[in-house]
Amino acid sequence: MGPGPSDIHASVLAALAAPTVGHLDPYFLQVMDEVQSMLRAVFQTTSDMTLAVSGTGSAGMETCIANLIEPGDRFIACVNGVFGGRMADVAERCGAVVTKQERDFGEAFDPEEIERVVREQAPKVVGIVHAETSTGVLQPLEDIARIVHDAGALLLVDCVTSLGGLPVEIDRLGIDAAYSGTQKCLSCPPGLSPVTFGPRALDAMDSRKTRVKSWYLDVGLLRNYWGGERAYHHTAPINMNYALHQALRRVLDEGLDARFARHRLHHQALKAGLAAMGIDCSVPEGRQLPMLTSVWIPEGVDDGRLRSQLLQDFGVEIGGGLGPLKGRTWRIGLMGDSARRSNVMLFLTALEQCLKQQDIRVPVGAGADAAAAVYAESS
Amino acid sequence: MGPGPSDIHASVLAALAAPTVGHLDPYFLQVMDEVQSMLRAVFQTTSDMTLAVSGTGSAGMETCIANLIEPGDRFIACVNGVFGGRMADVAERCGAVVTKQERDFGEAFDPEEIERVVREQAPKVVGIVHAETSTGVLQPLEDIARIVHDAGALLLVDCVTSLGGLPVEIDRLGIDAAYSGTQKCLSCPPGLSPVTFGPRALDAMDSRKTRVKSWYLDVGLLRNYWGGERAYHHTAPINMNYALHQALRRVLDEGLDARFARHRLHHQALKAGLAAMGIDCSVPEGRQLPMLTSVWIPEGVDDGRLRSQLLQDFGVEIGGGLGPLKGRTWRIGLMGDSARRSNVMLFLTALEQCLKQQDIRVPVGAGADAAAAVYAESS
Repeated sequence: MGPGPSDIHASVLAALAAPTVGHLDPYFLQVMDEVQSMLRAVFQTTSDMTLAVSGTGSAGMETCIANLIEPGDRFIACVNGVFGGRMADVAERCGAVVTKQERDFGEAFDPEEIERVVREQAPKVVGIVHAETSTGVLQPLEDIARIVHDAGALLLVDCVTSLGGLPVEIDRLGIDAAYSGTQKCLSCPPGLSPVTFGPRALDAMDSRKTRVKSWYLDVGLLRNYWGGERAYHHTAPINMNYALHQALRRVLDEGLDARFARHRLHHQALKAGLAAMGIDCSVPEGRQLPMLTSVWIPEGVDDGRLRSQLLQDFGVEIGGGLGPLKGRTWRIGLMGDSARRSNVMLFLTALEQCLKQQDIRVPVGAGADAAAAVYAESS
Repeated sequence: MGPGPSDIHASVLAALAAPTVGHLDPYFLQVMDEVQSMLRAVFQTTSDMTLAVSGTGSAGMETCIANLIEPGDRFIACVNGVFGGRMADVAERCGAVVTKQERDFGEAFDPEEIERVVREQAPKVVGIVHAETSTGVLQPLEDIARIVHDAGALLLVDCVTSLGGLPVEIDRLGIDAAYSGTQKCLSCPPGLSPVTFGPRALDAMDSRKTRVKSWYLDVGLLRNYWGGERAYHHTAPINMNYALHQALRRVLDEGLDARFARHRLHHQALKAGLAAMGIDCSVPEGRQLPMLTSVWIPEGVDDGRLRSQLLQDFGVEIGGGLGPLKGRTWRIGLMGDSARRSNVMLFLTALEQCLKQQDIRVPVGAGADAAAAVYAESS
């Protein structure tokens, strides 16, 4: 119940452990085809250039930026958490002229401020995080997508934590490039990064004047491997692709809408339980992530000791705050297969026990009762 | 029995499928520690900076080059196959001034020619492939290591195919940086790249004037995650590290010397069998790789049809030639757990059958008989 990796279903672990075939074996090529097709469904796009990069989420970020940016290109990084900051860092290393549009950790961006900075800077690419894993903040994208496109720029979106838990509407919003991770709401072990590129992003890559600085992440080369030619590029992480295949099948079998509703329900139950224990969300209503609930640590709690006890006594991991929120917030994940009633109830009960041991009293059983009431209402 | 991935032992697949914990979970940190310690044993080094990069072998190559090279640095790439050529490509993208020292595919380098080009170019780094997967050629390193060090340059070695199957003596030869893959003689699925850096390489990184172009592969950042501080960098591929842990344990349980001897034995048996069928190695004696035997395709054989039939009828994959050797050679892998008598006997028998179907007659059973004789002698 941390900010990822999430729980992995037994069938996904079983797929992971299937016999390893060659990376150009006809069977594996079929797995790749089906992974691509299922990723398109989850990203809600028809783009051919939708695939799983052979690295974790940050490798997906670097793939997008390294292929879209040439030295001297202007990049606006919207920074309201760790991962927006990472985008700025990666873009600088790729030679971009980076403008950081900043907000305090825990806040979302308004369309107006994005409009202002886009007008001022006339960037090639605007990078923004859909679901900031470091703060639990949801960033609405609809108006921002319109603004960025009206200015002729490309929109790059970090969907690491949102994909599979919240609608990620690549084609409807015209998002030009996006990357995700497998270990959050897709409930697959970490090791691959789903990415997708739309037609404007591919045009930008086709008209590059310089080579992509990374050979490993060069989309021009990846296109020949994942695309029709199947030209050998690198040896893909075969078993990780088996696991992603099974994880995606589970996502689509459940159905995207049902999956999003499930994430919302358990988030509501968790929040109600925490509220009954006097613990408040650190993110305002309307900007909260269903899959990652960030709350203020109650006064007087020893953060490190409490999280260690949760892990050791109850086998429950939650995340601490990052950056300026370190020691001030907890991040409680309900991602993919982790988003279930037994986790919510166990966590609330375990938390009560851990708080009691630090002489912090909350009404006995109030958290679990309040969560149970939300479940009762919903059924 | 292709050029990798090799067969994976059931216990390694089982480790791969163990429950996914968090990337900062105390249990996972212990797994990382033990992976590092076992990698040091396999690389025959004491260097702290020995770890598994979160990508496949080519990501390891890029990690080494991107961290050692700054724009304008001189790099000599010794190119006698696909992977030497890839080093040159990666180094150019990192801004190196690259000199390609070339040999025909299938040949090894002599120390004299390396001495000449090193004297001429005074490079910062010389990159060379220990075991060229594309050609099956072994490159002796002892004299070359001395030459490169005498010239004050750094030696970077591609050990993708050699590690775990041939001695890779990092400390004895003073190799400054090396990378490998998990899916060859370590018999672990692909997805991680073991790398190691010696003191001179770390000094060179510490005195960089520019930042590493890749954030994902920046060794300065990786040092803080894999090193003492355990500072969060990226989410490591947790389950892949479990698998590598178990694969390395198996390597060390067998013992390096016993493992090298096993690779040599099965290579000898395979060669004897092929010779009895009139099929010759494409690499001269003394430069052949025990784990990857490259042979000339017999006159009149339809390469694609034969390899398809081997795969479909017998479930045996072998590799075709690459580059100028395409259609001219086969590459038969006996790597890690694949290096066993049943594979050698099955392959020779299956090959005889496939050749017969193309009306290419070989003495009946001669291949298997000759291999069996080698085994009888050795026991």
